[in-house]
Amino acid sequence: MGKQFLEITEKEEVEKLIADLCVKLAKKIAAEKQIVKIEEALGRIASTDIFSPRNIPPFDRSTMDGYAVVASDTFYADENNPSTLIIKGYIQAGESPSQSECLEKGYCIGIATGAPIPKGANAVVKVENAQEYRDKVKIYKPVAPAENIMPAGSDIKQGEKILRDGTILTPKETGVLAACGIYEVFVRKKPSVTIISTGNELVAPGEDLKPGKIYDVNAQTLRDSVIGCGCVPLFLGIVPDSLEEISTKLKESLATGADVIIITGGTSAGVGDVLPTAIEGLGEIIVHGVDIKPGKPFVLGMVQEKPIFGLPGNPTSALISFNLFVNPLLRAISGNHSHNREEVKRRIRAKAALRIFSEHGRNEYVLVKLAKKEQTPKEGFVYPILSGSGAITTLSNADGYIFVEKGKGIIEEGEEVEVELLHHLFTPPY
Amino acid sequence: MGKQFLEITEKEEVEKLIADLCVKLAKKIAAEKQIVKIEEALGRIASTDIFSPRNIPPFDRSTMDGYAVVASDTFYADENNPSTLIIKGYIQAGESPSQSECLEKGYCIGIATGAPIPKGANAVVKVENAQEYRDKVKIYKPVAPAENIMPAGSDIKQGEKILRDGTILTPKETGVLAACGIYEVFVRKKPSVTIISTGNELVAPGEDLKPGKIYDVNAQTLRDSVIGCGCVPLFLGIVPDSLEEISTKLKESLATGADVIIITGGTSAGVGDVLPTAIEGLGEIIVHGVDIKPGKPFVLGMVQEKPIFGLPGNPTSALISFNLFVNPLLRAISGNHSHNREEVKRRIRAKAALRIFSEHGRNEYVLVKLAKKEQTPKEGFVYPILSGSGAITTLSNADGYIFVEKGKGIIEEGEEVEVELLHHLFTPPY
Repeated sequence: MGKQFLEITEKEEVEKLIADLCVKLAKKIAAEKQIVKIEEALGRIASTDIFSPRNIPPFDRSTMDGYAVVASDTFYADENNPSTLIIKGYIQAGESPSQSECLEKGYCIGIATGAPIPKGANAVVKVENAQEYRDKVKIYKPVAPAENIMPAGSDIKQGEKILRDGTILTPKETGVLAACGIYEVFVRKKPSVTIISTGNELVAPGEDLKPGKIYDVNAQTLRDSVIGCGCVPLFLGIVPDSLEEISTKLKESLATGADVIIITGGTSAGVGDVLPTAIEGLGEIIVHGVDIKPGKPFVLGMVQEKPIFGLPGNPTSALISFNLFVNPLLRAISGNHSHNREEVKRRIRAKAALRIFSEHGRNEYVLVKLAKKEQTPKEGFVYPILSGSGAITTLSNADGYIFVEKGKGIIEEGEEVEVELLHHLFTPPY
Repeated sequence: MGKQFLEITEKEEVEKLIADLCVKLAKKIAAEKQIVKIEEALGRIASTDIFSPRNIPPFDRSTMDGYAVVASDTFYADENNPSTLIIKGYIQAGESPSQSECLEKGYCIGIATGAPIPKGANAVVKVENAQEYRDKVKIYKPVAPAENIMPAGSDIKQGEKILRDGTILTPKETGVLAACGIYEVFVRKKPSVTIISTGNELVAPGEDLKPGKIYDVNAQTLRDSVIGCGCVPLFLGIVPDSLEEISTKLKESLATGADVIIITGGTSAGVGDVLPTAIEGLGEIIVHGVDIKPGKPFVLGMVQEKPIFGLPGNPTSALISFNLFVNPLLRAISGNHSHNREEVKRRIRAKAALRIFSEHGRNEYVLVKLAKKEQTPKEGFVYPILSGSGAITTLSNADGYIFVEKGKGIIEEGEEVEVELLHHLFTPPY
């Protein structure tokens, strides 16, 4: 048992498998809706088309401070021969004009910006073009019918589609919802991701560090990276490298209703052997091992139509595997692709500040640091980080990584390379 | 009273005043710390330098599966003449070797990756270069002292600075904290911002819309924009345009301990007159009116060393004023400048798809929409949005805005313009 999945899969093949998985899962998850108040809607994704329940503005509205008039009363007015109208009253923004009375020729009503146009009036004379005296006003400039009036529904019509299914709700969109008086909205569920750490040597930060033990890093970096992909992480704890304990934890994960499960191995070889067996007991193995370094001991399984990712225990390897294979899936199913958009600079071209050696015959990811302004060589150059993938500082000092393809052993000093920046991977949507 | 502050201030002067304010306030707010668990630290900003309380790794650690040996025992080993050592036992990752016994020459201990090096051993022979038989192992390749060992503290030394004051905590940083076993961290307080809407015509979304009333948009867009700046918004409700009610609300704002107060006017002229008087009663007016369109009725006051921003009631004008004057201040005091960084594309160059008219003698911001691929003219062109600043769709349809400087009345068709993208303003830090 188990032998059939020990064959290493090519990186491109794994990427293809995951792209197919994205399509299937994204569809399923996009169908799961929840309702939220607009105050909590920022960054969420609309899960239906949304239509305005009313006209915006809801009534014909003055766009100026001035006088609501019958336009024809002003047609021949000028500086020398003003029209004189009797002021019947005033209307402020927020007030409602009488619906029984109708403004007649020869009369006008003082009106504030934003106030509703009274019945009978069909234009507004700006305050600058008028002069009050006692209960009358002189109009010095004619207005055309509809002038300085924003008609009801001219901004948004009742029944008009204001948001499309799948739109990310930024302040522009929540503002439109507010304008239409919509205070609750259907949004897509955020996918949930359980995280499990395995390794007899692992201890959670905050606990005592007994001899031979180290602190678990992956629970933290993966939890935060999952948030960065627009998903909700749930850390289920550290388990020892035992088939029974890992199987139990996987069942616990499935019972939470999680959409995706991530399990990282300890630095021991344990998980590489035990996890595939545990997955086989519940579902099937799709990938066991990828031709990349670091990150070779990568596992992808499917249980109850849910993907289980087995990542290496080493923090740098875990994060590279996560970013190559898990990140695209999580962003696809959360519907939040903002970081694939052109607004965010994902990659830069740079030059190698020194010769970079890579293992011939392995697709290798080399973590690099960008040179600073004051250094020689300056900006535009990258240095490989040589502390090795076992060191946490390899990760924390890195600005990005470069990919050295299988068969290319050496990058020469000064050779141009493409740097995948870590920053964009760490900038979550909302 | 009040006359002295009716002078319009130039845009550049307002920007300078706010830049000075940023420095003063940022310093004050950066001094306010709070402690959070690392699980809640993502996106927060370290408020102290942080030093590692321990060596990482905490012990000399094997980087390979193999045999812990005294290196000199292997010096002359090769394929034909292997060294033979007696296996004294095995040590797995997470286990602790005996501290009383010392490995002697002629002996070895089977060791897993990540396990602590036993006392007396000074190198690890890889499993590929050894062969076990019964209680012995043949070593086929020599190892140098220290080979395949990662010494205690070689990744991070006890007492070493692992994070600088002011660092944004991304998964790289929270991972380093976890590795060092740090589970609580001092971070800067998130600045709090109270938001007040004024206008007799305003009603909150979700409430009944009586005749003459409209829904309040600014509470929602400003609340979400404040989150986008890394601050915590607190909406204090809608108040009528009355001096008494506005004064009371400002006092309530101050009582919450808010760092910044934002108050938007209704579309009525009310707030323009009442707010400065209310502020004068409590503190002082710095700016009353800016030479931009839209956004002229902008007010900046200081009360108890806290800035009060008075923004126009019109949603488009409010958001442009917010982005020009409030956004830079909030990002500066929250310490989160990520969106000023080069990774995010803030501006693009484009061409006007048609002639754009602007009011001569006013600095004008014109909201524009980027042309789509399938349009003629295609990508690279922008269209002005002509629905006017009173329409909510002016804002929701816009991709960005262009600035037309005072004195430049017309932008010709095909003329190059710089577009400030709204997207980056709406992508919050965490």
